[in-house]
Amino acid sequence: MISSGIPSGIRSGIYGASGYTGQELLRLLINHPHCEVTAITSRRYKGEPLSSLYPHLNAVINLNFMDASTDEVASLCDVVFLAVPHGEAMEAVPRFLEAGKKVVDLSADYRLKNQSLYEKWYCSHTSPGLLAEAVYGLPELHREEIRTARLVANPGCYPTSIVLGLAPLLREGLIDPSSIIIDSKSGASGAGREANTAMLFCEVNEGFKAYKVRAHRHIPEIEQELSLLAGKDIEVLFTPHLLPSNRGILSTIYATPTRTVDTVFLVDLYRNFYVNEPFVRVLEEGLFPGLSSVRGSNFCDIGITFDDRTGRVLVISVIDNLVKGAAGQAIQNMNIMEGFPEDSGLKLVPLFP
Amino acid sequence: MISSGIPSGIRSGIYGASGYTGQELLRLLINHPHCEVTAITSRRYKGEPLSSLYPHLNAVINLNFMDASTDEVASLCDVVFLAVPHGEAMEAVPRFLEAGKKVVDLSADYRLKNQSLYEKWYCSHTSPGLLAEAVYGLPELHREEIRTARLVANPGCYPTSIVLGLAPLLREGLIDPSSIIIDSKSGASGAGREANTAMLFCEVNEGFKAYKVRAHRHIPEIEQELSLLAGKDIEVLFTPHLLPSNRGILSTIYATPTRTVDTVFLVDLYRNFYVNEPFVRVLEEGLFPGLSSVRGSNFCDIGITFDDRTGRVLVISVIDNLVKGAAGQAIQNMNIMEGFPEDSGLKLVPLFP
Amino acid sequence: MISSGIPSGIRSGIYGASGYTGQELLRLLINHPHCEVTAITSRRYKGEPLSSLYPHLNAVINLNFMDASTDEVASLCDVVFLAVPHGEAMEAVPRFLEAGKKVVDLSADYRLKNQSLYEKWYCSHTSPGLLAEAVYGLPELHREEIRTARLVANPGCYPTSIVLGLAPLLREGLIDPSSIIIDSKSGASGAGREANTAMLFCEVNEGFKAYKVRAHRHIPEIEQELSLLAGKDIEVLFTPHLLPSNRGILSTIYATPTRTVDTVFLVDLYRNFYVNEPFVRVLEEGLFPGLSSVRGSNFCDIGITFDDRTGRVLVISVIDNLVKGAAGQAIQNMNIMEGFPEDSGLKLVPLFP
Amino acid sequence: MISSGIPSGIRSGIYGASGYTGQELLRLLINHPHCEVTAITSRRYKGEPLSSLYPHLNAVINLNFMDASTDEVASLCDVVFLAVPHGEAMEAVPRFLEAGKKVVDLSADYRLKNQSLYEKWYCSHTSPGLLAEAVYGLPELHREEIRTARLVANPGCYPTSIVLGLAPLLREGLIDPSSIIIDSKSGASGAGREANTAMLFCEVNEGFKAYKVRAHRHIPEIEQELSLLAGKDIEVLFTPHLLPSNRGILSTIYATPTRTVDTVFLVDLYRNFYVNEPFVRVLEEGLFPGLSSVRGSNFCDIGITFDDRTGRVLVISVIDNLVKGAAGQAIQNMNIMEGFPEDSGLKLVPLFP
Repeated sequence: MISSGIPSGIRSGIYGASGYTGQELLRLLINHPHCEVTAITSRRYKGEPLSSLYPHLNAVINLNFMDASTDEVASLCDVVFLAVPHGEAMEAVPRFLEAGKKVVDLSADYRLKNQSLYEKWYCSHTSPGLLAEAVYGLPELHREEIRTARLVANPGCYPTSIVLGLAPLLREGLIDPSSIIIDSKSGASGAGREANTAMLFCEVNEGFKAYKVRAHRHIPEIEQELSLLAGKDIEVLFTPHLLPSNRGILSTIYATPTRTVDTVFLVDLYRNFYVNEPFVRVLEEGLFPGLSSVRGSNFCDIGITFDDRTGRVLVISVIDNLVKGAAGQAIQNMNIMEGFPEDSGLKLVPLFP
Repeated sequence: MISSGIPSGIRSGIYGASGYTGQELLRLLINHPHCEVTAITSRRYKGEPLSSLYPHLNAVINLNFMDASTDEVASLCDVVFLAVPHGEAMEAVPRFLEAGKKVVDLSADYRLKNQSLYEKWYCSHTSPGLLAEAVYGLPELHREEIRTARLVANPGCYPTSIVLGLAPLLREGLIDPSSIIIDSKSGASGAGREANTAMLFCEVNEGFKAYKVRAHRHIPEIEQELSLLAGKDIEVLFTPHLLPSNRGILSTIYATPTRTVDTVFLVDLYRNFYVNEPFVRVLEEGLFPGLSSVRGSNFCDIGITFDDRTGRVLVISVIDNLVKGAAGQAIQNMNIMEGFPEDSGLKLVPLFP
Repeated sequence: MISSGIPSGIRSGIYGASGYTGQELLRLLINHPHCEVTAITSRRYKGEPLSSLYPHLNAVINLNFMDASTDEVASLCDVVFLAVPHGEAMEAVPRFLEAGKKVVDLSADYRLKNQSLYEKWYCSHTSPGLLAEAVYGLPELHREEIRTARLVANPGCYPTSIVLGLAPLLREGLIDPSSIIIDSKSGASGAGREANTAMLFCEVNEGFKAYKVRAHRHIPEIEQELSLLAGKDIEVLFTPHLLPSNRGILSTIYATPTRTVDTVFLVDLYRNFYVNEPFVRVLEEGLFPGLSSVRGSNFCDIGITFDDRTGRVLVISVIDNLVKGAAGQAIQNMNIMEGFPEDSGLKLVPLFP
Repeated sequence: MISSGIPSGIRSGIYGASGYTGQELLRLLINHPHCEVTAITSRRYKGEPLSSLYPHLNAVINLNFMDASTDEVASLCDVVFLAVPHGEAMEAVPRFLEAGKKVVDLSADYRLKNQSLYEKWYCSHTSPGLLAEAVYGLPELHREEIRTARLVANPGCYPTSIVLGLAPLLREGLIDPSSIIIDSKSGASGAGREANTAMLFCEVNEGFKAYKVRAHRHIPEIEQELSLLAGKDIEVLFTPHLLPSNRGILSTIYATPTRTVDTVFLVDLYRNFYVNEPFVRVLEEGLFPGLSSVRGSNFCDIGITFDDRTGRVLVISVIDNLVKGAAGQAIQNMNIMEGFPEDSGLKLVPLFP
């Protein structure tokens, strides 16, 4: 909200603003017509000006990091975005809710409905009573619940690309759920801004590899949402890979159809399914999306085809992991919760090249 | 101009919209509050939808490339941006002016006041009569002439970073003009989108080299503007290098002061010189800008210091070559020419990472 | 063969040496202890010194490009490597064979045994009589035939990574061939050095996308070799993607086992299968290879696991596309044909970072 | 030393082998005909196999990291390469010398002859008595002293590129030393392998910036060697920048000649100066080197020109910072000290692309 003439809508706080996701929320909220940022927190950098960490935001917005007092943050804003690691979010969210604030949690803490599943993949949960209330914030599937939610669990980046890529097929029962194979590739910003030898420039650049094979924490989240769509429990094989690029996730998804389909039919199915969605673009037959088409934007681009030689459906879905996979989707959720136009602050034209 | 509620201001055309600069103009104009794009041209791609060349613009704006008829373009718009190569612009600009249109020419054709200098570095000029009228479109130096101009010659990318980097020193007479050495580094988008073996990914990636040593066509343009500032003719040594990155120019500039200075004094000088400039950010003492701080934005970030060991001033200046170095500055010029707020459509927060 | 004291073994020519594969052959042959390069050809660059195209080879080897006269080349060497596009190789190969030369063809022209299949995917074949004689040059599978071959068809880059990745499983009949899904990712050097807008730095960098979906010409080659291993005709789903890196191919391969397996068993199977192979490294349980581990070397690194949740085998295989996927394998084949130690000239330690 | 038939020459140890420089020494020594590696140390990783840190070396050489006991290392080898940080080297070097070992120290500890200068830029020195004995290991300038040295201080990466770039001009007294300006650009491997937020992929990729402006520790080393060449004390302005690439340093150097020169004369001067040097390639008039021409090799490529417009000499010099700027030069020094052919183990053809 750079422009001063316009009356403020609401005030927001970013709880844990020192990471890539936190600063991306700032990038987007700065130009949001109905929401201004009034508080940013960071335990490590409290007192420091934002621009000392993020010089690109110098003179764009002038804020200092506050310490992570939930009371103080709550007193300064109407809605809180949490961009802290899992485990930390669950400590703060109950306090923000008690203070009457709306909450969009970008961590994993409230994404899984099943407490024991959460505790198997993450850690013990200190506010499991909120799991039932929290709404999984994928607007394309859960818009109505988001509208009235106090607490939205913002989806993970991989799950966003995958669930949007498979939703039409699964809801229509067109594929065998046991046949799903998901091969995903992510840019390096998904790993966050912590110092880490494995993420040094020289380790990632000119490289490419799978990681957390069979063990990535997004697996239960992906399966929860796909199971909901399928109407039964699904297990999928998901292999994430690390790309030598800053932003973006591309998921290549394979599945076996349960009945005769062709590409024209599939493209139509997807176009109809997403016809009213402002942020999902289904490509024409024969076209497939690349990371460069969505960089910096809230779009999810999807291409789909049927391989008649091997009888399989192939879906390719791309997002910017920091936007539709994190900060952009969080703002989309906030817009829905607050009754703002859903694309407020999100009319982001992709940056190319 | 996505938003429909706001009354259209003016209509613009992009003459030569198939290159990186043309599509960047589109990226920025799409969200411009007072200007919509009504015509885009391309000889090679006429009739094709914009999104066939630039899939990232799919569903953001729906336009087809028109052939390069200046009459038709003129009939469709109030202001014309030319993003064609030098030599082509000079053929079309007179026609647009005759048709009463305002023109921002992003080519080099009207940047040099001296016809013979132009012809020495470029080619013979077919409308030299306009050279005197054309205004060199660096708003920080020529804002008043731009305001009333019919024809603005939008500066080159290197000259923008260099002239802004040296203007305060030269205008104050604080450096010996003959001591200036400019070592510039540019991302690959500066080379355009023509097929070219030297610009293939594998040739540029993991590489770095100087090019057009002593022979880059921006030399006379740099010297023209620096000479104006110095009040006398200046020749400078300028060495451009090619970076393995998409966007950005960083110029490291060396000069010998004519009297005693220190860093605090220099930072103050720059801050005062640019105090009212919305797009120039002068960094604190001891800080120097990097490409990542301006990506996607219209900012020029400048750091300056005095090296007491060797008695030299060091200035580092960065811009996004496609924004402040091309399309963003073109829109800034158009805003000034049309009386719009100068930052209309340019409240671009840098994209990081 | 820099060192002069050692007696020359054989003389080789590179027919079509101006591309990335040609120059990579040069890089490797320069240090080969038993083979020197005596002729390099290029229609476009005839007469020019090698270093004008490839300055990194300046002062390392002094050769000028010759025109593509097969007679002249044949008169200068004992073995010929062809690194010309498909369609051109088939014109020259018969002449080299007639002249009594041994031939390693790096094009696709003699890889497919089935002429009509070749003509469906490529173009009409002018020397189909040699298809039966040509040996598919994957030493790990066809070493004995290579030993006595006059004409070796050097495998494609994708097929090398994939066939080595699947050979143990298929030969043992441990997977259902119809279940195979191959998701491959290649660096940009695979596209060659022709000027091409789609391969410009700015188009590839910070991007990632699938290409030639369901249509890549390596499909019949992959299927030919996998079918041989399986003992029956196989069709596979193969999706290539373009990575923003110079070198390397990583193939992620999925298949359903035909009987109970576990990871320990699979790793053992692979280690035994490749126990005598100097260039295949099977990783320990739980480890998976990345591109950075093989850059510049002739290694193929393979990791394998069984996902008990979904009942699938997962193989990840990496090579340097220009070495084991092209020039290195060609030299390995030449070594076998000539009776040299198989790793002559190929003791290449991977370059990292 | 893979090949077993050749009789072992000497045994070497790498003291501090876990960093990029240490592993690069291994890459090069593995194929050295007269030197094998018998000990590698790392405090942090003692007991671990080399391949757990550097999977690319898996099955190429089988060594485990030893703890950093100088006695044990000394007992296992004839020559020791130290690749530990400055401050640590000075503790170990005296012990290796006492044990009668030859030493090549890749740290900065013995590069500066002047103890107080060392202590001003680094830290207090615990074995200053060796500073006089240590030989600065730039073979092109100090070959004869290296031949008989017990202790060679291997040059820094920036100084190597700069001193080789300026030596002919300074030795001939052809430039005004006070006019020298050095603008250098380095790949990210120069920063080492320590976890460090500033060197994360996302911080470096698509970025470019100057760092340690006026404050880089290589300044006194550069000045020491340039002063030696000039025959008087020199101070230079040196600005290092960080490139988004793994390897390589390019230095662009500016100076004012003391008498009339032209480019032909300068190229001749350089060619004569380096005529017997196996690793310095002086380019033809009009050509300038890029990083891609030296990657993975021990070459230093130099281009030089005179700019008659501004009356300045321009030199561009490139090296691979990990080879000629570190490990390769260390082996070159060892070869000289041991009487091996100077290019033993260093016949490295640059890797492109």
